[in-house]
Amino acid sequence: MRYLKGVVIAGKNRMEVSPHCPVPEAENIVPTGALIRPLIWSPCTSDAHLCATGAASLPYLVGKAAGHEMCGEIVAVGSEVRDFKPGDRVIVCAIMPHWRSLEAQDGHAAQVQDNMYAGIDYPDRGGSFVEEYYIRDADMNLALIPDNVSLEQAVMVPDMMCTAFTGVEALDLRFGESVAVLGIGPVGLMAVRAAVLHGAGHVFAIGSRPVCFEAAKEYGATHCVDYHKEGYIDDIIRANDGPVDRVVLCGGTEAELSKGLKMLKKGGTLVNLSAYFSGKDIPIDPAAWGYGYGDKTIKGIGCGGGRLLMSRMVRLIADGRVAPEKMITHRFHGMEQIPQAMDLFLNHDRSLIKPVIYND
Amino acid sequence: MRYLKGVVIAGKNRMEVSPHCPVPEAENIVPTGALIRPLIWSPCTSDAHLCATGAASLPYLVGKAAGHEMCGEIVAVGSEVRDFKPGDRVIVCAIMPHWRSLEAQDGHAAQVQDNMYAGIDYPDRGGSFVEEYYIRDADMNLALIPDNVSLEQAVMVPDMMCTAFTGVEALDLRFGESVAVLGIGPVGLMAVRAAVLHGAGHVFAIGSRPVCFEAAKEYGATHCVDYHKEGYIDDIIRANDGPVDRVVLCGGTEAELSKGLKMLKKGGTLVNLSAYFSGKDIPIDPAAWGYGYGDKTIKGIGCGGGRLLMSRMVRLIADGRVAPEKMITHRFHGMEQIPQAMDLFLNHDRSLIKPVIYND
Amino acid sequence: MRYLKGVVIAGKNRMEVSPHCPVPEAENIVPTGALIRPLIWSPCTSDAHLCATGAASLPYLVGKAAGHEMCGEIVAVGSEVRDFKPGDRVIVCAIMPHWRSLEAQDGHAAQVQDNMYAGIDYPDRGGSFVEEYYIRDADMNLALIPDNVSLEQAVMVPDMMCTAFTGVEALDLRFGESVAVLGIGPVGLMAVRAAVLHGAGHVFAIGSRPVCFEAAKEYGATHCVDYHKEGYIDDIIRANDGPVDRVVLCGGTEAELSKGLKMLKKGGTLVNLSAYFSGKDIPIDPAAWGYGYGDKTIKGIGCGGGRLLMSRMVRLIADGRVAPEKMITHRFHGMEQIPQAMDLFLNHDRSLIKPVIYND
Amino acid sequence: MRYLKGVVIAGKNRMEVSPHCPVPEAENIVPTGALIRPLIWSPCTSDAHLCATGAASLPYLVGKAAGHEMCGEIVAVGSEVRDFKPGDRVIVCAIMPHWRSLEAQDGHAAQVQDNMYAGIDYPDRGGSFVEEYYIRDADMNLALIPDNVSLEQAVMVPDMMCTAFTGVEALDLRFGESVAVLGIGPVGLMAVRAAVLHGAGHVFAIGSRPVCFEAAKEYGATHCVDYHKEGYIDDIIRANDGPVDRVVLCGGTEAELSKGLKMLKKGGTLVNLSAYFSGKDIPIDPAAWGYGYGDKTIKGIGCGGGRLLMSRMVRLIADGRVAPEKMITHRFHGMEQIPQAMDLFLNHDRSLIKPVIYND
Repeated sequence: MRYLKGVVIAGKNRMEVSPHCPVPEAENIVPTGALIRPLIWSPCTSDAHLCATGAASLPYLVGKAAGHEMCGEIVAVGSEVRDFKPGDRVIVCAIMPHWRSLEAQDGHAAQVQDNMYAGIDYPDRGGSFVEEYYIRDADMNLALIPDNVSLEQAVMVPDMMCTAFTGVEALDLRFGESVAVLGIGPVGLMAVRAAVLHGAGHVFAIGSRPVCFEAAKEYGATHCVDYHKEGYIDDIIRANDGPVDRVVLCGGTEAELSKGLKMLKKGGTLVNLSAYFSGKDIPIDPAAWGYGYGDKTIKGIGCGGGRLLMSRMVRLIADGRVAPEKMITHRFHGMEQIPQAMDLFLNHDRSLIKPVIYND
Repeated sequence: MRYLKGVVIAGKNRMEVSPHCPVPEAENIVPTGALIRPLIWSPCTSDAHLCATGAASLPYLVGKAAGHEMCGEIVAVGSEVRDFKPGDRVIVCAIMPHWRSLEAQDGHAAQVQDNMYAGIDYPDRGGSFVEEYYIRDADMNLALIPDNVSLEQAVMVPDMMCTAFTGVEALDLRFGESVAVLGIGPVGLMAVRAAVLHGAGHVFAIGSRPVCFEAAKEYGATHCVDYHKEGYIDDIIRANDGPVDRVVLCGGTEAELSKGLKMLKKGGTLVNLSAYFSGKDIPIDPAAWGYGYGDKTIKGIGCGGGRLLMSRMVRLIADGRVAPEKMITHRFHGMEQIPQAMDLFLNHDRSLIKPVIYND
Repeated sequence: MRYLKGVVIAGKNRMEVSPHCPVPEAENIVPTGALIRPLIWSPCTSDAHLCATGAASLPYLVGKAAGHEMCGEIVAVGSEVRDFKPGDRVIVCAIMPHWRSLEAQDGHAAQVQDNMYAGIDYPDRGGSFVEEYYIRDADMNLALIPDNVSLEQAVMVPDMMCTAFTGVEALDLRFGESVAVLGIGPVGLMAVRAAVLHGAGHVFAIGSRPVCFEAAKEYGATHCVDYHKEGYIDDIIRANDGPVDRVVLCGGTEAELSKGLKMLKKGGTLVNLSAYFSGKDIPIDPAAWGYGYGDKTIKGIGCGGGRLLMSRMVRLIADGRVAPEKMITHRFHGMEQIPQAMDLFLNHDRSLIKPVIYND
Repeated sequence: MRYLKGVVIAGKNRMEVSPHCPVPEAENIVPTGALIRPLIWSPCTSDAHLCATGAASLPYLVGKAAGHEMCGEIVAVGSEVRDFKPGDRVIVCAIMPHWRSLEAQDGHAAQVQDNMYAGIDYPDRGGSFVEEYYIRDADMNLALIPDNVSLEQAVMVPDMMCTAFTGVEALDLRFGESVAVLGIGPVGLMAVRAAVLHGAGHVFAIGSRPVCFEAAKEYGATHCVDYHKEGYIDDIIRANDGPVDRVVLCGGTEAELSKGLKMLKKGGTLVNLSAYFSGKDIPIDPAAWGYGYGDKTIKGIGCGGGRLLMSRMVRLIADGRVAPEKMITHRFHGMEQIPQAMDLFLNHDRSLIKPVIYND
């Protein structure tokens, strides 16, 4: 084990560059593993979340590198890696499913994963805001970046696209149906685009910031709705000639779930892409849920992972179906600027959608 | 319109025979309609519920016939009815979906229905605890009773089987998976049988009354679990070598949903068959739900309807796959005894699973 | 019954205007029915097919009006029609599913239909190339044309879009997957667009005529492939880095099915949208099918119908997701020009994609 | 590498015990691998097939061990095996899917497999009719045998149950629907049981041998049909009041597929479990297939694999849902008797359903 530089959670609202991030020597990686040198990073709301809450003082987080959205160049591969070699430009999975698990045989590989907090086989694991990043199953959890895809585009794949597109695939959306996306940060914006690319007619983008509404329109939203406006749910139902067919929930408090159910038709599906860490119950309003028998389905989905999913996502970019780089509002250079990028989140900068940091 | 005898909700905890139940003259029924003379009735918990709560004083309920589980003989049919004729023994749909609706084209016919409370095309509609019952779409909402199926068996079809089997079909259950049925009244018991008939391995029947546990075992439950026992959820997880694959929720308070989620595996499905009328929120414990990203799906399902579904159910009886009459613990004779049967529910008789009343 | 003008199949390769097309008087239509005056028609390959083959001399076809793609204005409605009124501009269903049928309860309404050949309830039925067209279930089988949708756009809905989009919905397509569309006449071109709108990455448009390749590119095809080129299947597999994920078959002879299977991955789905009337067997090459255990699914799909489906399609047009009018290569005026439009098909005009005839 | 005894394909219609079957030394197995000593074997029609046809002289088969249905005791495990240890009684997967493959990420793990012919990572692989059997991924491709499950029961899991139950899961069968099983050898008989256990009403068992009809009845078939009887397809349709809802094809020639389609309803699914090695085309009769648009789906399914599937199957046995040992008509002892058991197949013994050979 050697120790390299990385950006770690130092305490509440504090990230800093630390020289103490452990990475194995190239000769010690497992036969299926790989070492990757980052070329570009992107911080995520959830990195900020960890850093802004009590979580920042949890023993297994303090001093560990943050970050899970990164593309890089392969430095070394283990002896059994077949499809990747040093020098390849790759997208690194945000979560790293264990493909040799019963959960994977059950179709839920993402439920057993190595991620930035820790890993079953690699408990020291931190995030990818480091000089070199180690992963244990290269053939299964990396994807090649095609020549006509830029780093900025590619770094939107591992979480923003993998989360939103997995969520929209779970909507059971049919051609011409209406979709409401509640919360249009970067995952919500990708959900807008995914809904359009899955055949939606009306797409309601529900948010509050002009920069996000602009992006939503560009991605194909037909209606932009400000959730500060009194009665906005009724407005949506009126504009849609009835409740919407599908809802994607991308952020907000515990109270949003019932709002989503209220605007959803009987027989419709709501996909939740939010994480709930406050410890508070999530209340379902029985009337909004059709009193329990309205045939309204609620799915709790997380970021999907693996090489195939990432390859399908990057294929959409390469074929011109989605332009995720349009969400990038801020660009930085060098690992030292990551904390600065992070501050945009911590300060709730209203011009921010998504920042990237080039490792140069 | 003529007025016949029926058992009506007279007020809180009061049902009585009334002579004021409106039924059209045979010559006035719509061309697709039919009149049916009941041969057997079965009261349902939900009839009792209405009668025991504030609902009993709602203007649209007082004085209206209750009841939605009935089999009878056809007395008259409209001019366009093709597949039924006077004298046929039929099962009558508990809810009567509108098959000429956009909801039906959307696969959710049951979301627009005539039921005992009222009907879009027949606002005077009451329930089927009447001398003659009128339905508006005979070809779509009746099913013939085969010769080798008894009335007692057939009257378990319209709600008990249609609800439970529709719920289990929505579980996405795979062969050998484990199912927990939370609440083993008659719908729960049919869910136990449906789970076995859909390929379940372990089936956990969660209840408290010996008579129900006996029936659950007969229907194929592998484990009987008393929910009064401290730590019963952990017991189930232990006996199952992990959380169960699927959960069916058949009764209980708002608190049960999170219990069901707690015993459910990541990637599993919970089907709710309970109705929530208390006006209270249904709280989701975020940890039980995998913090929103555990891939746990919640479906809110109601009683399915229509001739095809009922025909499939009665086919299962005729072919010996299910013996729903084993749930019948009490038998009565004559409409006048319906209130007495109802009292079993209102008094929470511990020996009751399901009563029937013959119209003789 | 009165008799109006219509374009009928007069014999092999012969269509002509006839004054003998029966239409009921407005006062005689059923309570759910409607009379529609055509505003625009579009002939279809299958109209030509009937007229060019032995079918043209079948007793139930000779002298009957052809045509099943039409939009018009409502002239009269029956007493029970709720959602449409005289003067409304509507799309008329190509096939008219019976929504009060067990097939509809089974989710296969289109398998029992009134169409141009005949109808269960209306055996005299001919096609819609008539002065006035009668349908028996207006609320279920018409769709309103929104103000921002033109007649040319709308008349592409009942068959071209309803067939292609129903087919693509059955592909089980996931984001970024590859699709090959074999045959790019108008249904194939709509399948190209539907594939893009359902999340496809690579879309291979396989045809031969330049005018169709141009349209395919505009609709989002990434690769245009000429099936006259030797080895074109291997070319596709090479360009795709392996067999494609999904195949849509839109035309050709019995031999195409195995070609589609050959280019399809194990685990993939082929949707057939062709009709096979030659009486010849359709041969499956066992190697192409993975020897029967390659997990390759073959679905035989037809044109979907009903108001909801048509409304979802027209919503896609109104929201700018698809521009079907770009397929229209020829425009005519007046019923008398329908035979001339038909000749384009019968003469295999290489510049033809789709003609329309305005009724003015 | 050491060389142990095994039963090999020696030539056409010839199996023999050979001392030349290669097995690695315990210390050379891969970290995830295991060595298993057989306790019971069962030969399969497909073993006989290979031996009775030209395939018997294929270079990669001659001299290689046959067999793929085996249970045994673990002798040694690699250093990374977590869930199994020497002494465990286990079921060995008939096919061994590669769980670290893109096919597995795509939900089609079985399409990349090690089997008795060869393996990607272990090209010398033969079948399991050997003294010791080597597998490369123990945690993913073995399943523990519970105490209350016998060896005879367990050895029916890897192919008979895994094939039939996977096939029936793909039928999209709904409660009370009818199923026809065409071919009732041991896979067909397990399909009969699986259909009953998935909620079928009528189950038509189509075969010709009394011993198989007896077993089919015991497993829940409602109708036994002899395919030698003229007009048997019409008989089925008559007995079922219409075409059946689902068909499982388990054997026969290329001609059976169209027979299956003929008895299948529009909107129904046919699952093929037969393998087609004759090189001849499989002809689809267009009328039987609804001319290509009858919404009849054809799926070509093979034996599923992996620990989870086998564990689900053995759970069904342990919970008393299925008694596969009732198919065992012949019992032998010692590897030397395997060729004798094989002869039952080669001589088409009419009393044979399934033989087992104890390794004692």
